[in-house]
Amino acid sequence: MPYQDKGHLEIEDRGAVLIVRVDGGPHQLFGLDIANKLHKLVTRVDHDPNVRAVVFTGAHPGRFVSHAAVRWLQEEGDAGPRLGRRGAAAAVRVAKYVDRSRVLSALMSRTPMRGALQLEHIHRAFLRMNSSGVLFVAALNGSTLGLGAEFAWACDLRVMADGDFFIGQPEILLGIIPGGGGTQRLTRLIGTHRSLAAILEGKPFTPEEALANGAVDKIVPQDKVVAQAVELAEHFGKRSKASVAAAKRSVYFGGSMSLEEGLHVERAEFFVQVKTPNGQDGMLSYMKTTDVNGELPLYEPDTYAQALASGSVHTPRSTKGR
Amino acid sequence: MPYQDKGHLEIEDRGAVLIVRVDGGPHQLFGLDIANKLHKLVTRVDHDPNVRAVVFTGAHPGRFVSHAAVRWLQEEGDAGPRLGRRGAAAAVRVAKYVDRSRVLSALMSRTPMRGALQLEHIHRAFLRMNSSGVLFVAALNGSTLGLGAEFAWACDLRVMADGDFFIGQPEILLGIIPGGGGTQRLTRLIGTHRSLAAILEGKPFTPEEALANGAVDKIVPQDKVVAQAVELAEHFGKRSKASVAAAKRSVYFGGSMSLEEGLHVERAEFFVQVKTPNGQDGMLSYMKTTDVNGELPLYEPDTYAQALASGSVHTPRSTKGR
Amino acid sequence: MPYQDKGHLEIEDRGAVLIVRVDGGPHQLFGLDIANKLHKLVTRVDHDPNVRAVVFTGAHPGRFVSHAAVRWLQEEGDAGPRLGRRGAAAAVRVAKYVDRSRVLSALMSRTPMRGALQLEHIHRAFLRMNSSGVLFVAALNGSTLGLGAEFAWACDLRVMADGDFFIGQPEILLGIIPGGGGTQRLTRLIGTHRSLAAILEGKPFTPEEALANGAVDKIVPQDKVVAQAVELAEHFGKRSKASVAAAKRSVYFGGSMSLEEGLHVERAEFFVQVKTPNGQDGMLSYMKTTDVNGELPLYEPDTYAQALASGSVHTPRSTKGR
Repeated sequence: MPYQDKGHLEIEDRGAVLIVRVDGGPHQLFGLDIANKLHKLVTRVDHDPNVRAVVFTGAHPGRFVSHAAVRWLQEEGDAGPRLGRRGAAAAVRVAKYVDRSRVLSALMSRTPMRGALQLEHIHRAFLRMNSSGVLFVAALNGSTLGLGAEFAWACDLRVMADGDFFIGQPEILLGIIPGGGGTQRLTRLIGTHRSLAAILEGKPFTPEEALANGAVDKIVPQDKVVAQAVELAEHFGKRSKASVAAAKRSVYFGGSMSLEEGLHVERAEFFVQVKTPNGQDGMLSYMKTTDVNGELPLYEPDTYAQALASGSVHTPRSTKGR
Repeated sequence: MPYQDKGHLEIEDRGAVLIVRVDGGPHQLFGLDIANKLHKLVTRVDHDPNVRAVVFTGAHPGRFVSHAAVRWLQEEGDAGPRLGRRGAAAAVRVAKYVDRSRVLSALMSRTPMRGALQLEHIHRAFLRMNSSGVLFVAALNGSTLGLGAEFAWACDLRVMADGDFFIGQPEILLGIIPGGGGTQRLTRLIGTHRSLAAILEGKPFTPEEALANGAVDKIVPQDKVVAQAVELAEHFGKRSKASVAAAKRSVYFGGSMSLEEGLHVERAEFFVQVKTPNGQDGMLSYMKTTDVNGELPLYEPDTYAQALASGSVHTPRSTKGR
Repeated sequence: MPYQDKGHLEIEDRGAVLIVRVDGGPHQLFGLDIANKLHKLVTRVDHDPNVRAVVFTGAHPGRFVSHAAVRWLQEEGDAGPRLGRRGAAAAVRVAKYVDRSRVLSALMSRTPMRGALQLEHIHRAFLRMNSSGVLFVAALNGSTLGLGAEFAWACDLRVMADGDFFIGQPEILLGIIPGGGGTQRLTRLIGTHRSLAAILEGKPFTPEEALANGAVDKIVPQDKVVAQAVELAEHFGKRSKASVAAAKRSVYFGGSMSLEEGLHVERAEFFVQVKTPNGQDGMLSYMKTTDVNGELPLYEPDTYAQALASGSVHTPRSTKGR
């Protein structure tokens, strides 16, 4: 029986924040179905000015996502000829361009390139999460490995359940390596060396280890994970959506380039933001308050504290979609 | 009334070390005037073989630099058409080339490109600090935000006053993002994730937090900040100026490139240094001492300690400008 | 008397693990002879499917490697014209291509380019260590500076002797800078800022400091250093050699590129691994066990523990050279 899956995403709409429960069947696996639904969801929320943050959690009681559907990887790996590194690099590059064209994608979807295309599709979903003005929070209600961990690294913040759980990249123990970005995003999250050692050993982190090395941001009791993640989502989600997107792109993409190229990315993003009505309003209001009070608002402790709570230094009003 | 400022830099010449007090008026703002004066100062000390280190501090009793002159950013942002990310990237790229030409700069200085040019000018000053053989120390006598923090990240070392002070990037609370390198230099200083979280929230670090995450190097009582910064400036300023420049370029620029490109930068810088009279002298003297004493000088604890104090493993003599 | 050296590598074959004792003469120096022998050794073990890990240690009782043979650097630096940064960058680039051609190398070996070629040769050995499926462990039986430290940073794991020892980059105290990759690999190991400060000061780390900042992985009593390094070598060396190589290249090379380029490197490496017989076996065996036991093997604590110990989640059998 060829690989089939029936994973789905349960979406709970709480206005500015969506809670998305990943249901990967009895083994809580991340397969093609979830990949496709995730891609659609991420595209939709990125464009919807009303959605400011998304919390991902697992529908399974003790697992966020177990790992990828291994049958899926195995079958796609088995399709088509064995490749050397050069051939593989070429296939991956072709997939990148094909994935952007509906016609080509349809044409290639029944060829041995299908696996490379499906992989590309997941990568594009994760990259869109990194470039989006939506804040993504992983609510790790239990353990997660492999593609589940990579999904968590692609989020902006991570809250993990305390207890006998783990998160990591065990691929080497199956004779493969991470393929959903783990070697790249974990490396940028906790540093080259700790990432390399963890990936080479295949040993996952306990919640305490993950907190200590920065792989997760908070540990809370399991029954508080979603509530804590929603709190973070609401807090960060109050910032201007366009500014969040610009900051995320500057840090994730610019921050991984050479210093001079990265500075170029930042300046372009900054230049757009200072010209938006929202940026202009923010600066004009700041100057006006300075003139009225005789002090810079950010140097008045109460004003700064209120700005952090409301997401904006000027008097709260609707900030939807900005 | 269009934006005008009258900031200036008070310079105290202590021989190899300059102490520069930034005076940004009653609100201690970093505006165009300070930007231009900083650019000139940095260019001058980079070329002056007698200047080995510069300590920057704030003329205001409780602030290093409050932040940018917001009116300046707002007016320049308001000039010219609103731009998309592609247009902004192009404008920023043009500014880079125009800024290097006096004629073009003069021609463009009355156009809506003026803002992009002024931004480019600040970036060039900060990049020159990173490539210079002069060691720059930020003596953070109080709080600093936005462009003030970015100025501090562009320095090589940071000493901060203990107490009720803060340092950070609050731009998102005004609906904009950092534009003076904050998303790039803070990211490379404290890591992608902590930088992203701080920039997305807009919340500054306390001195303790900044010390713990590496954003500053030392915390001392407020009245000791300048003295401590001068001590560091004198200590590091005893090293060969050419070697300091080569090491800074290798780490700041090479270290942000791919490993292979970065290694190329290092090898070229190394190859220049081993051919300088100063490098040749250093190596010849090291071998001579080895032959005389029968032991490698760096494996004699007293000799190593003296070399760290004097900046050179061979007998102290004038090392000005080398 | 022109520079001559007679360093050599003593090799103890323990099957999957080699112990290599570096003997750099009475002063325990890393010279041209050791560089050439290291290059050959690394090439050989990379191709030998039976060798899974190499432990490097010093033949000298209290030193791993003192530092480079200074006479070698000095004489090669003295040969040929003094170069500016542009000329040096060109020379280094030429050396890179010449080093890959036996004919050109022979032609250039008596010219002033010889120094650049010798430097290139060391860099290629270190880069091959980073791209190899062999795991390299530095057993730091004592102190090490300069090129010795750079050799250690080029390894995958580092175990250091506790006690009055040190490791670091003192080059600036001789009026030069690190040239064997120190500004690049130390920067990627402990972060830009700590690396810069250490290189600019020239002060080495104590074992405790090195452990705290991540420059070494473990500190043990001096007489346990080699045993501990061998234990790590055996443990990590049980993983599939092809997967170790793919993971190392993804993290070391991809991890130092921009995020998008790095992801491309990972996907290509992953795509190769899922198509190998070893990767296919690993995945098929995983699915089979899942079907038999009704649970994912990595979610059965005993199975995961055994996989970490044996290097593979499927029943142990010969894994040589895979």
